[in-house]
Amino acid sequence: MRHILVIGSGKSTSYLIWYLLDQSETENIHLTIADINLEHAKKLTKNHANVSTIKFDIFDDISRRKRIKNADIIISMLPARFHIEVAKDCLEFGKNLVTASYISDELQALHSSVIKKGLVFMNEIGVDPGIDHMSAMQVIDRIKAKGGNMILFESFTGGLVAPENDTNLWNYKFTWNPRNVVISGQGGVAKFLQESTFKYIPYNRLFRRTEFLEIEGYGRFEAYANRDSLKYQSVYGLDNIKTLYRGTMRRVGFSRAWNMFVQLGMTDDSYIMEDSEHLSYRDFVNAFLPYSPSDSVEIKFRHQLKIDQDDVVWNKFLELDIFNPNKKTGIKDGTPAQLLQHILMESWTLAQDDKDMIVMYHKFGYELDGKNYQIDATMVTKGEDQTYTAMAKTVGLPVAIAALAILNKKITTPGVQRPITKEVYTPILEELKHFDIKFTEKEVPYLGYNPLIL
Amino acid sequence: MRHILVIGSGKSTSYLIWYLLDQSETENIHLTIADINLEHAKKLTKNHANVSTIKFDIFDDISRRKRIKNADIIISMLPARFHIEVAKDCLEFGKNLVTASYISDELQALHSSVIKKGLVFMNEIGVDPGIDHMSAMQVIDRIKAKGGNMILFESFTGGLVAPENDTNLWNYKFTWNPRNVVISGQGGVAKFLQESTFKYIPYNRLFRRTEFLEIEGYGRFEAYANRDSLKYQSVYGLDNIKTLYRGTMRRVGFSRAWNMFVQLGMTDDSYIMEDSEHLSYRDFVNAFLPYSPSDSVEIKFRHQLKIDQDDVVWNKFLELDIFNPNKKTGIKDGTPAQLLQHILMESWTLAQDDKDMIVMYHKFGYELDGKNYQIDATMVTKGEDQTYTAMAKTVGLPVAIAALAILNKKITTPGVQRPITKEVYTPILEELKHFDIKFTEKEVPYLGYNPLIL
Repeated sequence: MRHILVIGSGKSTSYLIWYLLDQSETENIHLTIADINLEHAKKLTKNHANVSTIKFDIFDDISRRKRIKNADIIISMLPARFHIEVAKDCLEFGKNLVTASYISDELQALHSSVIKKGLVFMNEIGVDPGIDHMSAMQVIDRIKAKGGNMILFESFTGGLVAPENDTNLWNYKFTWNPRNVVISGQGGVAKFLQESTFKYIPYNRLFRRTEFLEIEGYGRFEAYANRDSLKYQSVYGLDNIKTLYRGTMRRVGFSRAWNMFVQLGMTDDSYIMEDSEHLSYRDFVNAFLPYSPSDSVEIKFRHQLKIDQDDVVWNKFLELDIFNPNKKTGIKDGTPAQLLQHILMESWTLAQDDKDMIVMYHKFGYELDGKNYQIDATMVTKGEDQTYTAMAKTVGLPVAIAALAILNKKITTPGVQRPITKEVYTPILEELKHFDIKFTEKEVPYLGYNPLIL
Repeated sequence: MRHILVIGSGKSTSYLIWYLLDQSETENIHLTIADINLEHAKKLTKNHANVSTIKFDIFDDISRRKRIKNADIIISMLPARFHIEVAKDCLEFGKNLVTASYISDELQALHSSVIKKGLVFMNEIGVDPGIDHMSAMQVIDRIKAKGGNMILFESFTGGLVAPENDTNLWNYKFTWNPRNVVISGQGGVAKFLQESTFKYIPYNRLFRRTEFLEIEGYGRFEAYANRDSLKYQSVYGLDNIKTLYRGTMRRVGFSRAWNMFVQLGMTDDSYIMEDSEHLSYRDFVNAFLPYSPSDSVEIKFRHQLKIDQDDVVWNKFLELDIFNPNKKTGIKDGTPAQLLQHILMESWTLAQDDKDMIVMYHKFGYELDGKNYQIDATMVTKGEDQTYTAMAKTVGLPVAIAALAILNKKITTPGVQRPITKEVYTPILEELKHFDIKFTEKEVPYLGYNPLIL
């Protein structure tokens, strides 16, 4: 019997736990789920024979260390900032570790010690980061293997509501942490490469500099630039690439409307509004508009944002009920972003039977024997319900599969790792296909950004 | 003989030194000017009999303490962050201190110790802060004395080029630290009160939410909101005021054009541009625009910013030569703001014979016996040349006059002070009139922001 310790049993662990329990007989594993709150874990495990749940405080050194010492491999599904304590224990007791989070500088610093002990600390193996790494590297390696020279890589991911439950005018519902959606794009300029030129987009232009994307059977999407398009340039081996762009996908029209909140300052999370507790939705909007004793908040909003009388964007705002003088957020000492989030959650929360959807779109441009080619690869996955979501599936399954593969010594390269090598991505992507997480590839004419020159 | 020690002899000290030397015989004073670089000091003092200049490093504790100990009063014209060391020595040796800078938290913390020693540490006694405090409090106190109830206070200041040298399309030249102009408005939302409603303007709307102001004989100005409109609400005793707004003045049309730099992200000072050293002016602008193999930077700029073919704002950008493909800033590891500053300094630097100008505009609204009234007070001062600037005059004369008044025990209230009491502002404003720094008051109909209701 091998012991897998899963620390944290939040939203993203439903498929992870299901998969490991499903494999527990054939793989001869026992699962221990540790969390400070066991309610969710107990729902997920349903008294399965091969699982124990234990109440557990990550800051309780003695019990944390004991649990880690007794396990064969550790999966940390805690918020990213808590991984480091777990990682240090894993290093001490010689245990492998899997997380879905970005590699922090602290964690990276353990790299050579982890190698010395021959351990695998696999990270960034959820969906984004995770499936994006694996699916991109599989195609990039293939292109390079046949002698191709990468000239363009663009990659887009979106967490959206499934088409059958896409019932509001924004074509958007919160399928993950709402706060991250409200403050998305803040905290620094978006920087990317277009035809060997560095380009910069400030926050206040981000949602107007979108691109369109089409996925067969799912219609059109749009994407705005991520802050960190160049983050993986070296990791992916794309140092000489001409175009490198990473973005976030929404349904068409979302960004233009969202930009209006940005323009007025309603997404600002840096200061507290006076008397925020007693502001009505209408007062909240009005705080960002000039004073007038007679003009309505509606006409001032239209005027400041240049919304024509016949512009359909207007209905998006009415749908959110933001001009209601009677509803209050009731949030004490709230920032604009917090108040806006409250208003949006009223409209954008998934209904009981709503399903979420993860979409991913990669473009690979390359040159081979003097000619330019392009491959577009797309992936769409839908959730089953509000527990077994597409987000939980695409985050949790790669983590679970990786953990088993490490346990079974199929993944062995030691160190603080990302899933960017064949050894890792081949078996995992193969296994994910059984769960309908697969990419559709299409050869398309290479356009790049110089169509007239070709 | 009384000894005045002036630490720092930068741009803003020309009138300060001139005034004190001019009074040195009658007032029986000797001036010591201490700076790490004495070039400017020597130009200003011209071997006057009642002055010594000494080379002096503020971080050399021994010589700093010796000099402070030997003086009767200290004037610190150093950058604000250096005052605290001087202040601590003044406290220890029982010396009065005058600065033109904002009171830092560190300095404020000395308040009770300063009172205990019976010392006067007078600060914020330049132009803005300084003359704005004094001129505002004089009118506010007068209104209150006759039983009036303040309902509106708006205050605007601008450092501009004198009309006779106002020769470019922006009607603007740098008369002070160019960097502060480029990053003006950054670092937080602009917050103010309009008819008892808190209003917030984010940076990206700041330069489009301007108000117009007219000064007789000088034409029209515009003003954008300062970040800190509410900063002096309590200090001025305006806790129950309905409208409170502080702003920065420019000539009409400046802000709308400046906003275009803001929109594109060219004023961002938070990150370094790739290869900034080798970017031409044209490359710099293009970095904020989408890539195109064929469209010109000019048409992309017009398109992104919606500049019509017949819009005169266009000529402002041509005048700056920002589309020049041959000129480079040559700034290594530069931020967008630093590169933009370089480009602007080429066009906006004062010519040898150019004069600067300081403008100030206050509006005081009050209620008395059930009726509403308004007083508008304006002040315009021009410089004489590039040494004896309006900026140096309006910063340096109040400092010099205050120092003499403290030395002569006309200002005695101890503590870390601002010039907001009659004891201080009356003699100083009176003396400033001799140098043509005076306010013109006008009774105007009270409009406020509710004209239709009146």
